[in-house]
This record gives sequence, C-alpha cells and structure tokens, in this order.
Amino acid sequence: MSRSAVVLLSGGLDSATCLLIAREEGFSIHALSFDYGQRHRVELDRARALAARYGAREHRVERIELPSGASALTDSSVPVPKDRLGAEAIPPTYVPARNTVFLAHALAWAETLSAFDVFLGANALDYSGYPDCRPEFLEAFERMANLATRSGVEGRGAFRIHAPLLRMTKAAIVRRASDLGLDFGLTSSCYDPSAGGKPCGHCDSCLLREKGFREAGLADPGRA
Amino acid sequence: MSRSAVVLLSGGLDSATCLLIAREEGFSIHALSFDYGQRHRVELDRARALAARYGAREHRVERIELPSGASALTDSSVPVPKDRLGAEAIPPTYVPARNTVFLAHALAWAETLSAFDVFLGANALDYSGYPDCRPEFLEAFERMANLATRSGVEGRGAFRIHAPLLRMTKAAIVRRASDLGLDFGLTSSCYDPSAGGKPCGHCDSCLLREKGFREAGLADPGRA
Repeated sequence: MSRSAVVLLSGGLDSATCLLIAREEGFSIHALSFDYGQRHRVELDRARALAARYGAREHRVERIELPSGASALTDSSVPVPKDRLGAEAIPPTYVPARNTVFLAHALAWAETLSAFDVFLGANALDYSGYPDCRPEFLEAFERMANLATRSGVEGRGAFRIHAPLLRMTKAAIVRRASDLGLDFGLTSSCYDPSAGGKPCGHCDSCLLREKGFREAGLADPGRA
Repeated sequence: MSRSAVVLLSGGLDSATCLLIAREEGFSIHALSFDYGQRHRVELDRARALAARYGAREHRVERIELPSGASALTDSSVPVPKDRLGAEAIPPTYVPARNTVFLAHALAWAETLSAFDVFLGANALDYSGYPDCRPEFLEAFERMANLATRSGVEGRGAFRIHAPLLRMTKAAIVRRASDLGLDFGLTSSCYDPSAGGKPCGHCDSCLLREKGFREAGLADPGRA
C-alpha cells in the first residue's frame, strides 16, 4: 500500500503541479482545500475538478475563518494591485499567517491519517514576496510540527513539509507541469477573476503565470 | 494606550486564569475561542461569560473544522476515559495538532491587530500529557511565528507566546486565580459534561481540577 500524503490544493497552477509531483512520487493523495471567504472562489471549483481528475483518494474542503479586512484576497474593499509586480516587498494580497494556518490544519489531518508527508506549492523565486513562502519558514514549521504531535513525540515517524517548487522559476514549473500532463485549463491562478472565473490578466498572480508560460515557450490554455 | 494581546480562551480554569494574568500585566484583551464541534460545548458559553465579565475589548469565536474521529473530545463514539489519570502517556482526549491550529489562528488575528502577544493556558506539570503543551513546542512555535509573518520579517516587533501557567501546579494555578479574583463558577473544565453543563467529576480534567482545589485548600464553586 502506498504512503499517504496531504496535499494543499488551492486550484492554482502551483498546487496542481505539486499534486502531480506527489502522485509521481508514489503517494496516495489526500487533497486539502480551504473555504475562507476568498474573493477568488472559483479556485475551489478548480480544486474539486483537479482532485477528481488526478485520482485523489480523498478531497477535503475545510471551512475556516480568518480575520477579515487585512488582505485584498479576503476583503473586497481592498483593491487587488494590478500591473505592478514587485513594487512592494510584501503586497496587500498577503493574508496574515495564511500558510501557518493552512499547514496547521494539514498537520492535524495528516496526524489523523497516520501520514507524515505534507505537500504545498510554495515558491520563493517567482512569487509575490510572502514571508510564509520562504524556506526558513517551512523549516521552522517542520521542526515545530515534530514537537507538536503524538506521532512526532512517540517517534513513529517524522513529519516532512515538501515544497518541491520552492526554488523553481515559474517557467520551470510550467515545463514540469507540462511533462506531468497537467491540464492547465483546469487551474485558476488569478487573485481577482470575473464572476465566471475569467482571469483579470493584471494581478501579480496573472503576471507571474504569463511570464512563466512565455519563458517556457508554451501557450496557456487557462487564459480564456 | 495599552498594548493588545490575543488570549486563547476555552472557558476552562486555566485559560480564564491566563486572561486575568494578561489583564493584570496591562494588556488590552482580544479573546479568541473556537467552535470546532467539541462535545463539551458548554465551554463556549463560559468563554463568552468570562470575556464579558473581565472586560475583554473583543471576543471572537471562530468556527473551524478539525478532522473528526481522532479524539474523544470531538467524536462522541470515542469514550472519554474516567478515573484513570496518568494511565497513558498521551490519552485519547488528545486532539491532533489542536494547539498548533489554535495558535496559528491566534497568530493570524494578532498580526491583523498589529499585536505581538499571544497568551494561552498551557500547563506542562499537572496536565493530560499532550505533546503540544510542552515548553519545547511553544518555543518552536514562537520561532516559526516570527518567520511566518510580515510583522516578524519587517522587524516591527517580535511575537511572543506567553504561557504563564506552564510550570505551575494545578494548586498554584487555583491560588493565583483566587488572588486575581476569578469567579470559579464561571469556568468549565470537564471533558464530558452533562447537557446542562454539569461536570462529570471523573475525566482527567475534572480529576486535575479537584486535585488543584484540594491541594490549594479551597472549595470549588464550579463543582455543582
């Protein structure tokens, strides 16, 4: 029987690629998504479609609350910055402690499943500058996780936070996803899509995605 | 203006004492409780009463999901152990990664409030043996928190996880709470209360509480 892994699945390009990598490494996939009132809710539909298409053993969508008013991703009165990638060290789309919260919930589920592997699509190269995407954060989380849990304390295994995209360029991610057969049209990266799910083409996430496809020399079928 | 602190408030004796300590230290209190489907739901009513009585500036009850079936505290088909305190290293009332999840949400709120102080009533002496109540876990979480956040990265302050009860006996906690004027009748510690909120008197938490009052030489008005 293959080992189980919890894969954080947002419905974007990076987390979808991460799911395919975990699958290729032989893990049985338990995909985890969050409904936290994000304005780009189309990503939850995409996450469901991706989990189904790529054979996740289970897909769990947890409803959680995060403080509102702190981020352009959760508060519709805060504008999503357009056409100014890299203008600030940490942009207003940053959601306070989001990856800490997501990984904490992933850890709880992993421990329940007797799993020790958690995958997330964090990237520290072509990214939005979020502090909780950096390698030093992920290492500190992993260390904490092994002190936090029964499994860690009893020595039944060591939790590992896998971030296989961490040091890849967006172009390398696009190429890797293409090699693994990802149907790009199923993914949604935009921070501010239309009601029908159409990407805005101008937010950080759209700009990074466009750059990735351009540098990889591929067309993006997700750009409707 | 006094500094703000997020105080994790379960409605039990320890977290109530912690709230009073934070208040005595001059913090403006933002109390945080979780509705996670716990069977001892009476504690949420107690948390609301405590927050109101002791002047919390704000009380937030977040509804979150935790995996079910893993703990006697969230799954009514798993019996709460009775009259066997200390029989196992880690008892079945352990909820996988609960303090990691709670502290992650507290961190998210603290960052939103521009607060750097989080209080929780963890105790590593007279306790149930949970791995996520130990000092080494709390230190690892604090370190991670300062790498996870915009505030930590930009050097606007350092997050601190306060666990003022960590090395106190239950009797010392009872005495401290008494000195601070805690109305013990407002608190609920039982893992398996009756529908009306009456403590069972036999679970780990009831046994620890009883021991604390006995050793402190005080009567427990919360023991109806």
